[in-house]
Amino acid sequence: MRTLATWLGYGAMIFIAMGVAFVVYEVAIFATYEQREDAESLDRKQRELDRMASHVDRAAVRPNVVLILFDDLGFGDLGSYGNTSLETPRLDALAAEGIAFDHYYAPATVCSPSRAGLLTGRWPIRTTLTRVVFPTGSPLDATLRVAGAPVRLPADEITIAEGLRAGGYATGFVGKWHLGDHEPSLPHNFGFDRWMGLLYSNDMEPLSLWRDNESIEADPVDQTALTKRYTDEAIDFIEEQKDGPFFLYLAHTFPHIPLYSSDEQSGKSDAGLYGDVMADLDASTGAIVDALDRLSLADNTIVIVTSDNGPWFQGSAGNVRGRKGETFEGGMRVPFFVRWPTHIAPGQRSSDVAAGIDVFPTLLRLAGVPIPGDRIVDGVDLMPLFTGGVPVEDRPIFYFAWNTLEAMRVGRFKWQARRGIVYPEIQLGYFAIRIPKGPWLFDLENDPDESFDVHERHPEVFARLAQQAEEFRGEITENQRGWRY
Amino acid sequence: MRTLATWLGYGAMIFIAMGVAFVVYEVAIFATYEQREDAESLDRKQRELDRMASHVDRAAVRPNVVLILFDDLGFGDLGSYGNTSLETPRLDALAAEGIAFDHYYAPATVCSPSRAGLLTGRWPIRTTLTRVVFPTGSPLDATLRVAGAPVRLPADEITIAEGLRAGGYATGFVGKWHLGDHEPSLPHNFGFDRWMGLLYSNDMEPLSLWRDNESIEADPVDQTALTKRYTDEAIDFIEEQKDGPFFLYLAHTFPHIPLYSSDEQSGKSDAGLYGDVMADLDASTGAIVDALDRLSLADNTIVIVTSDNGPWFQGSAGNVRGRKGETFEGGMRVPFFVRWPTHIAPGQRSSDVAAGIDVFPTLLRLAGVPIPGDRIVDGVDLMPLFTGGVPVEDRPIFYFAWNTLEAMRVGRFKWQARRGIVYPEIQLGYFAIRIPKGPWLFDLENDPDESFDVHERHPEVFARLAQQAEEFRGEITENQRGWRY
Repeated sequence: MRTLATWLGYGAMIFIAMGVAFVVYEVAIFATYEQREDAESLDRKQRELDRMASHVDRAAVRPNVVLILFDDLGFGDLGSYGNTSLETPRLDALAAEGIAFDHYYAPATVCSPSRAGLLTGRWPIRTTLTRVVFPTGSPLDATLRVAGAPVRLPADEITIAEGLRAGGYATGFVGKWHLGDHEPSLPHNFGFDRWMGLLYSNDMEPLSLWRDNESIEADPVDQTALTKRYTDEAIDFIEEQKDGPFFLYLAHTFPHIPLYSSDEQSGKSDAGLYGDVMADLDASTGAIVDALDRLSLADNTIVIVTSDNGPWFQGSAGNVRGRKGETFEGGMRVPFFVRWPTHIAPGQRSSDVAAGIDVFPTLLRLAGVPIPGDRIVDGVDLMPLFTGGVPVEDRPIFYFAWNTLEAMRVGRFKWQARRGIVYPEIQLGYFAIRIPKGPWLFDLENDPDESFDVHERHPEVFARLAQQAEEFRGEITENQRGWRY
Repeated sequence: MRTLATWLGYGAMIFIAMGVAFVVYEVAIFATYEQREDAESLDRKQRELDRMASHVDRAAVRPNVVLILFDDLGFGDLGSYGNTSLETPRLDALAAEGIAFDHYYAPATVCSPSRAGLLTGRWPIRTTLTRVVFPTGSPLDATLRVAGAPVRLPADEITIAEGLRAGGYATGFVGKWHLGDHEPSLPHNFGFDRWMGLLYSNDMEPLSLWRDNESIEADPVDQTALTKRYTDEAIDFIEEQKDGPFFLYLAHTFPHIPLYSSDEQSGKSDAGLYGDVMADLDASTGAIVDALDRLSLADNTIVIVTSDNGPWFQGSAGNVRGRKGETFEGGMRVPFFVRWPTHIAPGQRSSDVAAGIDVFPTLLRLAGVPIPGDRIVDGVDLMPLFTGGVPVEDRPIFYFAWNTLEAMRVGRFKWQARRGIVYPEIQLGYFAIRIPKGPWLFDLENDPDESFDVHERHPEVFARLAQQAEEFRGEITENQRGWRY
């Protein structure tokens, strides 16, 4: 016993010393760390935006755009995606009035990089923002700084809002930002004329509500009123800009946890609070659709609904494997549907592959704005898919865990190099030595929930995909930002 | 940069010092640790076995028993459980010839405790063996010893084999043991007349093949021949004991990874190596069924097929959430079917709740052997369910993660206190403070994949289940082993 106590004492001392050293270390780094863009890339961005603005095709259709993004909504969380526990009649009706995708991928498995990819049309790794943004001054923010990781979207990125504004659009943002909580990475730095919302997820603090760089409600925000507030603000923007063209980016806070529902919906759903929250989101979507109708804007407005990543603690990933944070399908495969009555036939269901990075080129094309030429834009124009065209053959989908490329889908096959960010404990142990955890090859057509590795059955596919992944890794190593000149 | 380098240097020194201290500490503990049973409990066990042997009801049916346990076979890994990628015709036929359960629970989410629960009829926590057994001398084994955790099933536990042997059965074990790799916790210490197999999972080393305490093939065992070898040994035992009654416990090594298939099946399945391995297991089961037919034993032999826990890296959990190691359904809900032509009507499908701990009392009852009275046996006799009887109302299913009770099912509701052993990284961070990760209440009837917490909809159920869990915790704290006197 005496030996044990002595060793425990040594162990405790060592751990305490390590803890103290770590805190001192973090504080030191935190105080000196500053994320910087170089002047050259900022200049290039401005020149590119000027070029885009001066080459707008005024003969393009130039529809209004309403882009609705839910937070942590899972692939199986809507009636139109097979859910039988929740009631989402307005969302389901909207999906039925346009085209709904069963193989759409959010750009990442977690919030910040997913939003970076959606707004820039580039795989998040190119923006460097592959991790979640935490409030400045919080220990996790300090940890990112210590690691030299970005804590905001670099100001030299070009967003949909900047592209569409260069094309003469009015731009408004409402909801959760999560791409940086300080200059030069706030919504107005990235092309939004007006904005209102939260800077992070609703489980972070201090959580204030902002409007155009001013706090209008200090921490803690009344989250029960949040969806309604967003909705009112969104409709207010639509009304203000009804002469168009306008771009509204409405990024809801829910169903990210902690969950809060309105007094109106509270206690009504058989699926509990999550169901109540979904009813609020459904009603919000209905109110926006109604506003478009009331203002006779429906025909010339493209409405896009999607999610930033798979479900977290609650929520359903439907019939696919994995959840938020994982590079299995459930981490990135989410609902995606688009309504545009005059250009997209209703009642379509697509099994083509589409991705969040495609929204940027699709919208810029519709607005007659050139795609930036100074940088790689990974997304493709989705209009051909919306209108019955042929999908881009062999277009790859990349699944990253932070900076690590873990998986890639091309066609029906998915190459999976190793597991996601779960099960870290078995990475450490002695007995991991003999466990071949990958690389795997999944055939998503025969095996939709990624249960059976078939790399030995398709060695040529496996080799080709591994090669393609390696090339992408090489490309990122050589020119991570994808600058063209 | 200089500051950074200095701090990195300090950090490295601290980590190295910690590592060295930890190794010294482990070696010291390892050398002195010895798991002990007290003499009193060993005496009590012997007295109880004597009592059971002297009270055997010779008028009981006393069928032969073949208990087939797969390793890491998932809820969705068989055609009879909805799989469309794998071919398991013999297993599916066997399931169709008896009763198959859709709500059967293995006793734990990982190998060793699950086997402890299956063989003793008690929740694994009562046996103290709630963690995986690692090879003696390995770092993980040392870690368990340092933590004071058991490294083998205590010798004072009573297994099915000991119970049935007390009733005059011949007992044979073939396959993966995983309840201890040294005396007094080897198969022959727990009632098996003869045995052949591995002491651990096939990803551990040194991995020797043993027969009756002698190594017959040193590390590394030829795993491609393993399933065939087990099958031959099992059939050999059946032939030797054909005059019965006998108890055969066949615990396959597969589909636990690393996967190896026979030369015969290799490369045949469209589902890859996992499919080949399943074809081997299917053929093995077919060969055993054929042997029973050939020896005219089928009518008087109860054949039970199940798994020790959910699927690990590969394999399918079907339509339920979670996998091996998690206390969501996929961690413990696995296939379970039973064939006994003269006593169980064919073609039955049951949605009643059953558990691995029920096998012990069910088999002892059939053998006319009294259930041990000196200790709590948690399982219930399943024969009423096999023959159309009424399920035990409100029988709880307990889901443990190591020593922690994480979840409990009673009827249609499941109380979930917190997440399993995944996602540990978010337990640490600053932003976890606001995340309400539980406790949750899931309604498994309306929400089979545990997506929506309804505790606010059923506060009385929630309170009752929380109370019941608390009582069980209290019971374990007071008398973990469940001794009755």
